[in-house]
Amino acid sequence: MAETFRVNEVGPRDGLQSQGKTLTASDRLAMISSLVDAGIRHLEAGSFVSPKAVPQMAGTAEVFADLPSKQSVRYAGLIPNMKGYELATEAGAEVLNVVLSVTETMNQKNIGMSLDKTAEVCESIIRRGRGEGIEVQAYLAVAFECPFEGRTHPAVVTRFADQMQEAGAAKIIIADTIGAANPAQVRQVLHGVAEVAPVEKLSCHFHDTRGLALANILAAIDFGVREFDSSIGGLGGCPFSPGATGNVATEDVVLLLESMGYETGIQPLDLVPVVREIEVMTGVQLGGKSYRWLAQQWDKRNGVPSHGG
Amino acid sequence: MAETFRVNEVGPRDGLQSQGKTLTASDRLAMISSLVDAGIRHLEAGSFVSPKAVPQMAGTAEVFADLPSKQSVRYAGLIPNMKGYELATEAGAEVLNVVLSVTETMNQKNIGMSLDKTAEVCESIIRRGRGEGIEVQAYLAVAFECPFEGRTHPAVVTRFADQMQEAGAAKIIIADTIGAANPAQVRQVLHGVAEVAPVEKLSCHFHDTRGLALANILAAIDFGVREFDSSIGGLGGCPFSPGATGNVATEDVVLLLESMGYETGIQPLDLVPVVREIEVMTGVQLGGKSYRWLAQQWDKRNGVPSHGG
Repeated sequence: MAETFRVNEVGPRDGLQSQGKTLTASDRLAMISSLVDAGIRHLEAGSFVSPKAVPQMAGTAEVFADLPSKQSVRYAGLIPNMKGYELATEAGAEVLNVVLSVTETMNQKNIGMSLDKTAEVCESIIRRGRGEGIEVQAYLAVAFECPFEGRTHPAVVTRFADQMQEAGAAKIIIADTIGAANPAQVRQVLHGVAEVAPVEKLSCHFHDTRGLALANILAAIDFGVREFDSSIGGLGGCPFSPGATGNVATEDVVLLLESMGYETGIQPLDLVPVVREIEVMTGVQLGGKSYRWLAQQWDKRNGVPSHGG
Repeated sequence: MAETFRVNEVGPRDGLQSQGKTLTASDRLAMISSLVDAGIRHLEAGSFVSPKAVPQMAGTAEVFADLPSKQSVRYAGLIPNMKGYELATEAGAEVLNVVLSVTETMNQKNIGMSLDKTAEVCESIIRRGRGEGIEVQAYLAVAFECPFEGRTHPAVVTRFADQMQEAGAAKIIIADTIGAANPAQVRQVLHGVAEVAPVEKLSCHFHDTRGLALANILAAIDFGVREFDSSIGGLGGCPFSPGATGNVATEDVVLLLESMGYETGIQPLDLVPVVREIEVMTGVQLGGKSYRWLAQQWDKRNGVPSHGG
């Protein structure tokens, strides 16, 4: 039997939050429905942050109130702090994501807190969640390279993975926030983290800024990781603009996994109309590295005349 | 010490031969010079085919007569048959490539010969080369999937690798002609081929049609392969058009290898101006998956103002 992988869709949160255009809660729900219809079963549906700081995420409570297929889809919400925890749990979220950037400068510049203080906040959220039946997943951001401090030492990632694991994190997600990782480094970092947390608890979040995301994912697969974040159509801003995210595209991850014989529950071609729909919604041209080929196949299957070439 | 990899540039042959615009021998030499200046040390410089069949390759003998840095660069020429062998050796080529598509239909449709007959022709060219001090490298095309026969059985690839190895091929290059391979299949095929030929003699030629080329290359690296074909800027026609090639881009392969700590002798950023030059020459927009990021870095390093974003 084929091994099963989890593809965790982050487009509705990580993708949308950097867009120029702010979608209504109802548009965001339509987007989520299309993703779920295409087979997505793990999805970050929004974040409980101040709408002043991130207007794109205003109305996340409304989104959580109307999420489709709640029985069969695992929805997560991002929270920045304990206040976010309260907002999210009031909105009915049962899986929460916290983000710990593992370098001092990134924390100071981004949220004006020390690294240790941020780690403490994450720890206390995780512990509270454990007591209240809420799963809290810990992202370790800039785990490969920090835009301010350069290459991240693998031992640093291990240290904070250990702290999050000890606190009881439901999952530890190693995040290549600026898309600077390479497969050799992925192995190194995972090797360290696996000393303190079981590999079943690990997930990876890669950005495709340098075109290396799928190679990095392959390195993580070989290491035993069975869950990956991705964003439909690579939604998350142009990967080549300063500060943009460049999330690896869901269709690329699904195509890689499915073509290797793994089961994601998603047919790559079914993502093509979803990409098209979200392009219209966001007004942004989308599509991962495999998208044009997939779109060509989809058109062929559906009798759409070729645009030539 | 870092391990050394060979990146074999195929743009001046595999890349140019499918272009609408035909370059003069002198343009092709300018292109080759730029590639060599950027650190390329292995290069397929042209093919000795009928100019009626492939007008883009007319004048390959002139190209070979004036190749730069012959002492330090290993130049190869593609030949389709024994006549090509004669033309190539007369022109001074010392490394020749032959192509054996490993399915019956591909041979019948492409060159009107049976698979076994083509294999025989390749074998006799290899044997003649051995007697005359000419290295002949054997490409096994459609080694993963054939556009006519579908998925290629790994045992078939092993069988023809064995035949080429027995004949004395200098190298056996496993080619994913239509860009349909995945990393699991790469391992399977290499596993079979390694039973009949030493891994040091193997090279891989991937196309990036579905965005999986770097993941496939990583699988081959892990298997022990230390040489890869690539085409500058992905030159070889739009990977999404019917019949187009979609070669993996040299800058992508170099970036992957160099970022993993391997030595290619090439700095990824040095390829940026070469891509730009060849874009002008060919009138085609080029650039692999890493290109826009590399170009941004190059502009930054050279004080070119950002185009914003």
